[in-house]
Amino acid sequence: MTNKMWGGRFSTGPSEIMEEINASIDFDKRLYAQDIAASKAHCAMLAETGIIGAQDAKTLAQGLDVILTEIEGGTFTFSRALEDIHMNVEARLEELVGPVAGKLHTARSRNDQVATDFKLYVRDAIDALDEHLCALQQALAHKAEEHAATVMPGYTHLQSAQPITFGHHCLAYVEMFQRDRGRFADARTRLNESPLGAGALAGTSFPIDRKQTAKALGFDRPAANSLDAVSDRDFALETLAAASIAAIHLSRLAEEIVLWCSAEFGFVALGDGFTTGSSMMPQKRNPDAAELIRAKAGRILAALQGLLVVMKGLPLAYSKDMQEDKEATFGALDALALMISAMTGMIASAEINEKSMRKSAGAGHSTATDLADWLVQSAGLTFRDAHHVTGRIVAAADEANLPLWRMPLETLQSLEKRITADVFDVLSVAKSVKSRTSLGGTAPKNVRKNARSWIKRLERDSRSG
Amino acid sequence: MTNKMWGGRFSTGPSEIMEEINASIDFDKRLYAQDIAASKAHCAMLAETGIIGAQDAKTLAQGLDVILTEIEGGTFTFSRALEDIHMNVEARLEELVGPVAGKLHTARSRNDQVATDFKLYVRDAIDALDEHLCALQQALAHKAEEHAATVMPGYTHLQSAQPITFGHHCLAYVEMFQRDRGRFADARTRLNESPLGAGALAGTSFPIDRKQTAKALGFDRPAANSLDAVSDRDFALETLAAASIAAIHLSRLAEEIVLWCSAEFGFVALGDGFTTGSSMMPQKRNPDAAELIRAKAGRILAALQGLLVVMKGLPLAYSKDMQEDKEATFGALDALALMISAMTGMIASAEINEKSMRKSAGAGHSTATDLADWLVQSAGLTFRDAHHVTGRIVAAADEANLPLWRMPLETLQSLEKRITADVFDVLSVAKSVKSRTSLGGTAPKNVRKNARSWIKRLERDSRSG
Amino acid sequence: MTNKMWGGRFSTGPSEIMEEINASIDFDKRLYAQDIAASKAHCAMLAETGIIGAQDAKTLAQGLDVILTEIEGGTFTFSRALEDIHMNVEARLEELVGPVAGKLHTARSRNDQVATDFKLYVRDAIDALDEHLCALQQALAHKAEEHAATVMPGYTHLQSAQPITFGHHCLAYVEMFQRDRGRFADARTRLNESPLGAGALAGTSFPIDRKQTAKALGFDRPAANSLDAVSDRDFALETLAAASIAAIHLSRLAEEIVLWCSAEFGFVALGDGFTTGSSMMPQKRNPDAAELIRAKAGRILAALQGLLVVMKGLPLAYSKDMQEDKEATFGALDALALMISAMTGMIASAEINEKSMRKSAGAGHSTATDLADWLVQSAGLTFRDAHHVTGRIVAAADEANLPLWRMPLETLQSLEKRITADVFDVLSVAKSVKSRTSLGGTAPKNVRKNARSWIKRLERDSRSG
Amino acid sequence: MTNKMWGGRFSTGPSEIMEEINASIDFDKRLYAQDIAASKAHCAMLAETGIIGAQDAKTLAQGLDVILTEIEGGTFTFSRALEDIHMNVEARLEELVGPVAGKLHTARSRNDQVATDFKLYVRDAIDALDEHLCALQQALAHKAEEHAATVMPGYTHLQSAQPITFGHHCLAYVEMFQRDRGRFADARTRLNESPLGAGALAGTSFPIDRKQTAKALGFDRPAANSLDAVSDRDFALETLAAASIAAIHLSRLAEEIVLWCSAEFGFVALGDGFTTGSSMMPQKRNPDAAELIRAKAGRILAALQGLLVVMKGLPLAYSKDMQEDKEATFGALDALALMISAMTGMIASAEINEKSMRKSAGAGHSTATDLADWLVQSAGLTFRDAHHVTGRIVAAADEANLPLWRMPLETLQSLEKRITADVFDVLSVAKSVKSRTSLGGTAPKNVRKNARSWIKRLERDSRSG
Repeated sequence: MTNKMWGGRFSTGPSEIMEEINASIDFDKRLYAQDIAASKAHCAMLAETGIIGAQDAKTLAQGLDVILTEIEGGTFTFSRALEDIHMNVEARLEELVGPVAGKLHTARSRNDQVATDFKLYVRDAIDALDEHLCALQQALAHKAEEHAATVMPGYTHLQSAQPITFGHHCLAYVEMFQRDRGRFADARTRLNESPLGAGALAGTSFPIDRKQTAKALGFDRPAANSLDAVSDRDFALETLAAASIAAIHLSRLAEEIVLWCSAEFGFVALGDGFTTGSSMMPQKRNPDAAELIRAKAGRILAALQGLLVVMKGLPLAYSKDMQEDKEATFGALDALALMISAMTGMIASAEINEKSMRKSAGAGHSTATDLADWLVQSAGLTFRDAHHVTGRIVAAADEANLPLWRMPLETLQSLEKRITADVFDVLSVAKSVKSRTSLGGTAPKNVRKNARSWIKRLERDSRSG
Repeated sequence: MTNKMWGGRFSTGPSEIMEEINASIDFDKRLYAQDIAASKAHCAMLAETGIIGAQDAKTLAQGLDVILTEIEGGTFTFSRALEDIHMNVEARLEELVGPVAGKLHTARSRNDQVATDFKLYVRDAIDALDEHLCALQQALAHKAEEHAATVMPGYTHLQSAQPITFGHHCLAYVEMFQRDRGRFADARTRLNESPLGAGALAGTSFPIDRKQTAKALGFDRPAANSLDAVSDRDFALETLAAASIAAIHLSRLAEEIVLWCSAEFGFVALGDGFTTGSSMMPQKRNPDAAELIRAKAGRILAALQGLLVVMKGLPLAYSKDMQEDKEATFGALDALALMISAMTGMIASAEINEKSMRKSAGAGHSTATDLADWLVQSAGLTFRDAHHVTGRIVAAADEANLPLWRMPLETLQSLEKRITADVFDVLSVAKSVKSRTSLGGTAPKNVRKNARSWIKRLERDSRSG
Repeated sequence: MTNKMWGGRFSTGPSEIMEEINASIDFDKRLYAQDIAASKAHCAMLAETGIIGAQDAKTLAQGLDVILTEIEGGTFTFSRALEDIHMNVEARLEELVGPVAGKLHTARSRNDQVATDFKLYVRDAIDALDEHLCALQQALAHKAEEHAATVMPGYTHLQSAQPITFGHHCLAYVEMFQRDRGRFADARTRLNESPLGAGALAGTSFPIDRKQTAKALGFDRPAANSLDAVSDRDFALETLAAASIAAIHLSRLAEEIVLWCSAEFGFVALGDGFTTGSSMMPQKRNPDAAELIRAKAGRILAALQGLLVVMKGLPLAYSKDMQEDKEATFGALDALALMISAMTGMIASAEINEKSMRKSAGAGHSTATDLADWLVQSAGLTFRDAHHVTGRIVAAADEANLPLWRMPLETLQSLEKRITADVFDVLSVAKSVKSRTSLGGTAPKNVRKNARSWIKRLERDSRSG
Repeated sequence: MTNKMWGGRFSTGPSEIMEEINASIDFDKRLYAQDIAASKAHCAMLAETGIIGAQDAKTLAQGLDVILTEIEGGTFTFSRALEDIHMNVEARLEELVGPVAGKLHTARSRNDQVATDFKLYVRDAIDALDEHLCALQQALAHKAEEHAATVMPGYTHLQSAQPITFGHHCLAYVEMFQRDRGRFADARTRLNESPLGAGALAGTSFPIDRKQTAKALGFDRPAANSLDAVSDRDFALETLAAASIAAIHLSRLAEEIVLWCSAEFGFVALGDGFTTGSSMMPQKRNPDAAELIRAKAGRILAALQGLLVVMKGLPLAYSKDMQEDKEATFGALDALALMISAMTGMIASAEINEKSMRKSAGAGHSTATDLADWLVQSAGLTFRDAHHVTGRIVAAADEANLPLWRMPLETLQSLEKRITADVFDVLSVAKSVKSRTSLGGTAPKNVRKNARSWIKRLERDSRSG
């Protein structure tokens, strides 16, 4: 059978393998709602500008509504022979309303149509992701408030470096996810130009009104160059880039959760709802969700890289290569939404083992920096000298197998005679975190204030979202 | 509901989001045949070694055969609550044969089970890809024989450099795909060690016989280290790397087909079966299949990159991250098979426009090198001097707007007095290609001989495949 | 020798291999200007807040100025044993000003220091890239104005689809590069928060004023969370993502230039300054710069992917892994600047072969869409019917080996009786492009107006830049 | 100045930006030894076949030897204006031996020349990597023998799953690196076909002997197709793919070392030679080398991805894009060699804290599988029933806060009446690992035997290497 829509001059139909490689309906049917919305906007404009009659436009719009209902009701039959969502909809429209269906595609091409549909889809996905991210930030901000004074080790090189609070750690992620939201918002602003009316690539001689369709579909304006409008996939690339960076953030937190759930760290216990067992080792409580979040970053990075590869070196305007834009984008944005939701659930349900955190926070001479700072502030050493003295004291403590705060004063003084008993005031973990009151520092009062500020701000965001 | 298989100690079931992120049955059901084959081999070995009774083994094997029939007949109901293919099969087995089903998993873990299944799957995919590649090579070798003397431009920088034959060009790809087959074959050899019997990670205290199961499943030997056996995904990475390089080759040929199909080149016309039309521009005959092959390279590169990202920095032995190994691998290997098949169809059906090729082959002073070589061989210049003289002659020809073979002898002699009328013998395209008789050169007799040699060799391969 | 700066407690020095893998001075010396500027800002703040004395601050600042002069004058000796730019500068400072140098690092860590330096560097690079992109847009906009009415084929699938103008094509790229500038500008805004004062990760107990140093270094504000401030490399990732998309745009234009320079297309001749020859084929004029631009996209994509891989799954706060952020970023941003400059030169110097373009623009029944549109607008067919009729007419024209505008009227009427002689008005290339007056369409008057508007706007940008 | 080598027909020289983007001498000078070796082989063949005279050949060879000495002695002046290593060498040759230098490039092109040089370089790099990997395996195998009975936790999901031995863990990596060596060896075999004599792309009319040059350079045979020979970069891609997988293995071990060095795990202490300190926190001993190894995987993955992107969609034969093949390959192979060496040093110098390992190995009911297996083997339960019973026992142990081996017999019997006191024989960590005697299992006697076998085998390899 020759293809219904473009087969006019073909003597034989595409081979089976061609249909398999060529058809996109298996994945682009996801665009049905956007496709129908765009067709309705186009149809209304065609009538408004007199390109088609008002009655025809009404018939077409009603037919499109029926199709929407059919698809959402699960009664629509998609056909691979009709290649894609656009042709599936149009063919069904012809069944429903007869030959007038042939007017819908006036002054339009699949090139501007698919660019419009896909942009609308990505825009919707961005809006959903923003809500998901906001919910995750809320979970983190609440944990931060709750644990504003819960001490834990601050690590560099996974070595305990200085004590921090768990709340401070949570707020670091709130900052990251806020930047992610900013990137998505910027991508959304930049994509919000309507390709509809660009035609195949050159524009059209029909007296269309692109501003009307742009407005009807919530775009800020029509895209300014028809060639660019149909050949541009920046919006997918930029969204995937934002998704990749967000995925990196999630992977970092996921890695930490996996570490924290280990018996060796023992900082966190996840609820049963976010833990699985083993078929062979009945005692296991595995942080599968965290591991999968960490791993799914690979999928999102791959989607970005894959689409960059597709677009590299592609001459203008439309090439069929660009059909490869959708599956990976759908998959990546789905995965990201799932990752954020799972992370939100994990964070909300996580039980913090304050005792383990506190114990680790004090290990490894984690207040050595406080000692060095004391030597500068109270004993008048330069920072570099203080640093060297502290190094010698730590070595002595290691040899004596004692924490810094248990070192005899005379031993300390033998290494640096200006040390007085006052030094012990700064060597405890609790004192250490309290002292970090610089802007952005880990002092509990900072953390509490910032957590509350975030909670309020996110509450506003989620109400307006 | 708590999970049937590992839920013994869980008080509440996994949340909905957890099920969504955790379940793999939607994609790993593809492994059903491998899973059942491996279970049957395991079961036979358990009986042989006396770990379970012979009657139990028979019951289990019969149950597994029923399940295979059910899945292949489309009557099997997969359940997401049962997570993966392994649990779906085992749960059904219990329905079919009762509590004895509980014996099947003796001395086995999902970790060695899934590694075994996935390896078997990749091995099967490699075998199929080898056949596909061989068929593509055959199509190319036949075209090469047919067009052993068909001249076309040989390009560097997409500038006509020296005339070659189309057959020579086809054989260049035969070489590339042969290396691809070599890479897949090497990957197959390297992967062919059985993980079965590695248990969760440590081996087992049951007196199993890993050599028996390895042999039954066509492996060369058992994997030597249980920890490595369950944590290794090299086989997927190496196969994806081989697939990526093959995809690059396909993308290069696809790019050339797109170029050759352009009106400007006009070298090739694809059959209707591998061409599509346009919804707006009825005259178009688009090389969609070539464009999609070119684009799908992006998907395969992405799959490789994605899995490398997943595996990076993963501690031993099994982490749930590794569940992300399958979807991308399945997708990439499917895509590659489709790309090869579509390319084979395109090559076989392509009509070569010899006239256009010949015309382009003679443009751009493509025999300038022949002139330079003549100056060395017949006029005794050093190559560098000959090169400079040729450069001046080409400039003169450009100015006179003449091809080299139409340049007046006196003009040539005014630039280099040692030139004689004999030079015109080497300036035609046909003479040029005929003269390239060095090993691997484009001379038609070379090409014909090599094409025939490949045809025989590939015929043997396809018979034994 | 034990390391001067942190070797206090080490009994043996790092091995040679360790020095080789660990030292970053070979590449991070690039940050010298930023490092010194940040140290001067830090030093001024330490004095302002009374943490160090005013005289000490003056001494330190003078020493830093000397070092800047030494480095820029090429008299500074970098030492690998001192690991990185920070330690090289500080060690030299001590040589210059004595033990007071040890006060500079008070209330600071290499972690916040390097984050500050690297952000300042990336910010500078973004500013330079914006200027480069603006210059490229100017070259394109001028070409667009000049060629507002120069017809060329508009391609889809590299098949001539509809005629467009070369100016329109140029403006499509102006749009793309404008989005690139927008992405860089957004990245710049988002990165512009100062890490300085975050300390190692927890903030500090010294009474520092982070707002002062932020302001002195041109940051909008201090980063709000000390942990995030030192562990964040989003700014590099986002900049590399913007660079990757820009590189894709450049690769597309580069691919087109390579095509256009081929003898088969013959649309463009590059000046000698952007062409190279061949060692063996003296007639070649190779578009090397275009090919290298196309290829260097690979390097930029790789840099993005590489840094994403580095950051994936990294626990907070600083890990040494993050030292791998710089080389690839430097390399990618250098490459992008070079690519843009080379492209600007090529565009500015390119000679357009209008005759070849016009000839190709009329080939392949490129006005078939105009015919279909005429059938809708003047003969009252639905678009789908018009499309089918056009398909049959194109097939007939192919068979008769005639362009559409040479087809006998009676033949046309035999295929669709409503066709009149008026149809020939829309079948010429010039008429076709003139008719595409829809917003963003290719009509010369649209293109001229848009080109002029861009020229003015870009002129303003470059003045203010 | 116009370019000396190919500037015959150019009226103006390349612009400065062109020189910057075009010149490769800054990085391809690395190929000097290979370039000179290949030129000498070519020269000898030209004389042998009578294409040039014997005396000329001798003069050329002597000149080339002088250049080699100059480059290795650091007295050679590289010039960017001469673009690349080939032209730098040839221009110097002309200075040294006069016009006869112009004969060297007879029957050769830069295309086959660079392919030959680069292949030789990659081949040398593979040989060096094989030696490095062998040394790393030796370090691991010796650790394995030493710690064949040292118990540690075997992890899945970073949860203690079953006890294993540290030796067993080391041998898992020996297996991985053996596969890496296999991949490199296969790549080496596949690349070992000589491009020399392929000319620019078409072969040559000179009566060259490609078998002679192939043999002289250690190739197995000449490449069979001249077009493929100059356009092929599979050898770099395949080597980078092998390098990527090796880098993944190294990153996994590096991640483990970072974990093991944490205070929370405390399994390993690295020597001072592989540890660094902190500028602010004097107590830190950071596993920088491990972190850098983990991170540098990103660089290698990026190099692979970048070159795949470069090659994607490139028409035959040579395009300038391919000049981008070298820098990333050099960088990646350098990085890998450094990573392996640093890892070897770390492994050799690592002190194992057996006490910490043993303590962790017994935590988390790690012998629960042994209990389940005992229930099958001694009490006759099916595995699934045994698994459920074990789950209940573990839950009871958790509630009682007791390890399994301290649970009162009557409690166990209340959960499964078939349990006897014999069960306590399998619940200790030492008993557990001893029982895993299946092929590849973790039993100390297995590990010791395998370690010794590897030590012998690797000793042989390193002697023959």
